[in-house]
Amino acid sequence: MNGAQSLFAALVEAGVTTCFANPGTSEMQLVYEMGLSDAVRPILCLQEDVVTGAADGYGRMKGAPAFTLLHVGSGFANGMAMMHNAARANTPLVNVVGANASYHQPNYPEHEFVNGRIVDIARVVSHWAQEARSASELGALGAEAAALARTGRVCTIIAPTNRHWEAANPPPAAQARPRPEAAAEAIDHARRLLTNGRKTGLVLGNTAQHGDALETAARIAAKSGAALLGETFASSRLARGEGAPLLTPIPYEFEMAARFLKDFEQLVFVGALQPVATFAYRGKPALKSPPGCELFEMAPVEQDLADALDRLARALGAEGADVPRQARASLTPASGPLTAAAIGVSLTLLLPENAILVDEAATNGPEIMAAARGARRHDYLNPLNGGAIGGGMPLALGAAIACPDRKVVLVQADGSGLYSLPALWTMAREKADVVIVLLRNDRYNILGLELARVREKDMNARMESMLSLANPAVDWVATASGLGVRADRAETAEAFHALLATALAEPGPRLIECVVPVPEAWRKLEAMVRDSR
Amino acid sequence: MNGAQSLFAALVEAGVTTCFANPGTSEMQLVYEMGLSDAVRPILCLQEDVVTGAADGYGRMKGAPAFTLLHVGSGFANGMAMMHNAARANTPLVNVVGANASYHQPNYPEHEFVNGRIVDIARVVSHWAQEARSASELGALGAEAAALARTGRVCTIIAPTNRHWEAANPPPAAQARPRPEAAAEAIDHARRLLTNGRKTGLVLGNTAQHGDALETAARIAAKSGAALLGETFASSRLARGEGAPLLTPIPYEFEMAARFLKDFEQLVFVGALQPVATFAYRGKPALKSPPGCELFEMAPVEQDLADALDRLARALGAEGADVPRQARASLTPASGPLTAAAIGVSLTLLLPENAILVDEAATNGPEIMAAARGARRHDYLNPLNGGAIGGGMPLALGAAIACPDRKVVLVQADGSGLYSLPALWTMAREKADVVIVLLRNDRYNILGLELARVREKDMNARMESMLSLANPAVDWVATASGLGVRADRAETAEAFHALLATALAEPGPRLIECVVPVPEAWRKLEAMVRDSR
Repeated sequence: MNGAQSLFAALVEAGVTTCFANPGTSEMQLVYEMGLSDAVRPILCLQEDVVTGAADGYGRMKGAPAFTLLHVGSGFANGMAMMHNAARANTPLVNVVGANASYHQPNYPEHEFVNGRIVDIARVVSHWAQEARSASELGALGAEAAALARTGRVCTIIAPTNRHWEAANPPPAAQARPRPEAAAEAIDHARRLLTNGRKTGLVLGNTAQHGDALETAARIAAKSGAALLGETFASSRLARGEGAPLLTPIPYEFEMAARFLKDFEQLVFVGALQPVATFAYRGKPALKSPPGCELFEMAPVEQDLADALDRLARALGAEGADVPRQARASLTPASGPLTAAAIGVSLTLLLPENAILVDEAATNGPEIMAAARGARRHDYLNPLNGGAIGGGMPLALGAAIACPDRKVVLVQADGSGLYSLPALWTMAREKADVVIVLLRNDRYNILGLELARVREKDMNARMESMLSLANPAVDWVATASGLGVRADRAETAEAFHALLATALAEPGPRLIECVVPVPEAWRKLEAMVRDSR
Repeated sequence: MNGAQSLFAALVEAGVTTCFANPGTSEMQLVYEMGLSDAVRPILCLQEDVVTGAADGYGRMKGAPAFTLLHVGSGFANGMAMMHNAARANTPLVNVVGANASYHQPNYPEHEFVNGRIVDIARVVSHWAQEARSASELGALGAEAAALARTGRVCTIIAPTNRHWEAANPPPAAQARPRPEAAAEAIDHARRLLTNGRKTGLVLGNTAQHGDALETAARIAAKSGAALLGETFASSRLARGEGAPLLTPIPYEFEMAARFLKDFEQLVFVGALQPVATFAYRGKPALKSPPGCELFEMAPVEQDLADALDRLARALGAEGADVPRQARASLTPASGPLTAAAIGVSLTLLLPENAILVDEAATNGPEIMAAARGARRHDYLNPLNGGAIGGGMPLALGAAIACPDRKVVLVQADGSGLYSLPALWTMAREKADVVIVLLRNDRYNILGLELARVREKDMNARMESMLSLANPAVDWVATASGLGVRADRAETAEAFHALLATALAEPGPRLIECVVPVPEAWRKLEAMVRDSR
């Protein structure tokens, strides 16, 4: 057995069944092993942010890792941004990166960085990163990484080519790693906060946002009178729609979030981080919560959140509490010009039961996604928990691979969508059942707001040119068709509704290009920001 | 004056006139300053590898830096692969990366990496990377980076948002940094080697591959009888075509390179690295040069290579040596099915005087590019000196911005071209005068060869699927049109010749999709590799 075989055996024995790959020379021995086996489905992606972003979507939906195959330092670098989002989402993920032979690295061939090694960048975006020092260690690292990844960790194995071809031992059996339990004192303190009569938010993140953990948290909130809140971006996977417990995410924009949280006296965090602003602004506080609001972390994300919530529910006697649930919205399809509101209505009406709704809708997102809470039951994913844009299409692809019997609907802004065009090709190749609602406003619209925060003088044409995608406007129908995805354009609410209905009724992938104006609410926010300077 | 103004003033005073940008929130103060001034041309790119790859092309042609504007860690990560190529090419380049406010970083907002900071990844791919510790230091770092970059260094400034808005001093005056001179002993040793009667190669890299340095090196080779060789990939910018000194690059594939170099007894390097294989292979040596061949580095890349070569030429009495020069090829256009050979002929006939020829043609490259040496005088760029693929389109874009009065022709393979689709949009927006000859073989063809090196059994369908781009085949005409670039498809040699002639006669950008079979020479190489295992 060689090192490549030992590593592959370790991953297969640990239950890994899917590989998102963009291989190169240094990964050929793993490509060969994968080619000889039918234990792992290899999914070719044409750029590494698609590889890692798809593995993120897969891991969020499966709760178990795919592995990625990345080519040396540059391939790893190309996949880092989406890997960062995955790490911030605590997605189970195993990366395998080929590297120059250990004895060849000091010869400084082309792929060696000018000032360091792959592990130097890998450890920054991974929870765990190791370079194999022998062929046998390659297998052992595979077993360790696959087990550790299941606890919501991004693990990166750097595999020099000679470690692939050298003789190796079979890999050790994977050791399951249970998640640590929350401290009893933490649960008791949370119980005291939830019964002291103050205005309280129970802020959920990560694995507390779906499944039994969410149901338990909702009972706790109902019993205690706390508001059930969520981290700004669904921090892994959020259960929503008809019949789901009502949970309100903390708004993204600082001014809206500060207004939303202004009356809270205490916030209890379960798998969630404190509500800091995404960016600091001159003269503004870093926290969205008001001064004096007590912030208490009951259980950090790496702990067993379902167990922690169970224990808290028992301590509060909340086991039988009646949970308020989302009602199905009663709407009629819109007519006339296509707007974000009209898209929200159609999505709410047509989203099928058990769909996966992926949101990289940017400035049009809040309006559409607030409406779609009234759709049939679905899971909601948002790639922006790490802030790196372009994750929508890869995430939708990975979710579709993980859940082939569920429809995936991606609402994608144009600026961030342009980061991940090659994802369309893999969707076409793998017949991923994805409908992409592509929102075109031909502008990095959010930056208009951010520029308004700093500029003293009026916007001028040169500034606008740095935010504009209008010249030339991208023809998404042509672009998506060129990459193998059937695409249509909608210019009215009626046309969109009909196209969405058709797209949902047929196997994907499909793309619908929607030309939508900037929402009125956004113009108001921009004025509010200017006034508050 | 605030920090953003101090930094912007430093860059402008240092003569920086072009900014390739994909800005976000943390860069808005620089966008604002750039918007108020007309000293710098801002060029919006839709993904960061386009930003950094274009800045690489610009820097190679100008010999002076552009600056990039990148958004936080994920934006930097997205641009790292092309920045790595730039660093390996010793391209003058200044990166400016916005970061969270220094006091906000410990709050761990979304953009913070799970395990480190931007500077941790920046220093790996940069020659110099600093995070500003005050607003005044931001300006000082700008002056230092711009001066250092001119000596062929990639310099990265990390600019926390509070350093933009805090009060700053005006920047210090930029201190020119002369390149160090080569040691007299090194030149004398080279002289001895070049006169000892052994078979010698004079291997040029980087700034020795064009301009006066190349002319001087050619006189040295003519006088001494040494062969004039070049690093495998044009390591920055190579002067070629009619009238240029004859220089032969060392072949890329190990077997071909070893055969090419087998009789050399000594190699003298000027701004070039020793000829190591790109990858190590089991049981094969790491060096392409034969055992016992003396390898002597006369002048490393960071030294003043033109001066070193002048001194060597004087020591050899080579000042008046007669240099053999490339003749213009006499060819007739091909007919029948379109092949790499036919493309090479048309390119050789039609390439206009003073064009810039960019080569990311992959497995079809050697045949086309060898032919095109007989074209009119041109500069040749190759992005692969750092091994990261996808650099062709960004490099062509940047070269066109640097040299608006020169035609740029990019010969681009499909697999690597799919990495950089958003570059097409910026070409369209900036009316970059680029003709893209897009070679479609619907396969990561080079990996067929690399898999042949490691596989024991025959290729099977699953292995082939990991190398194939055929399902679906990309429609480049549709894709490029969608992104704003006029495109046509050529299926015969005659059609290609006519389309290329038209494209060269009109302002760009234009793309010609060419369906070309795998060259016969490549099939033979694959067999040779299998036999040599």
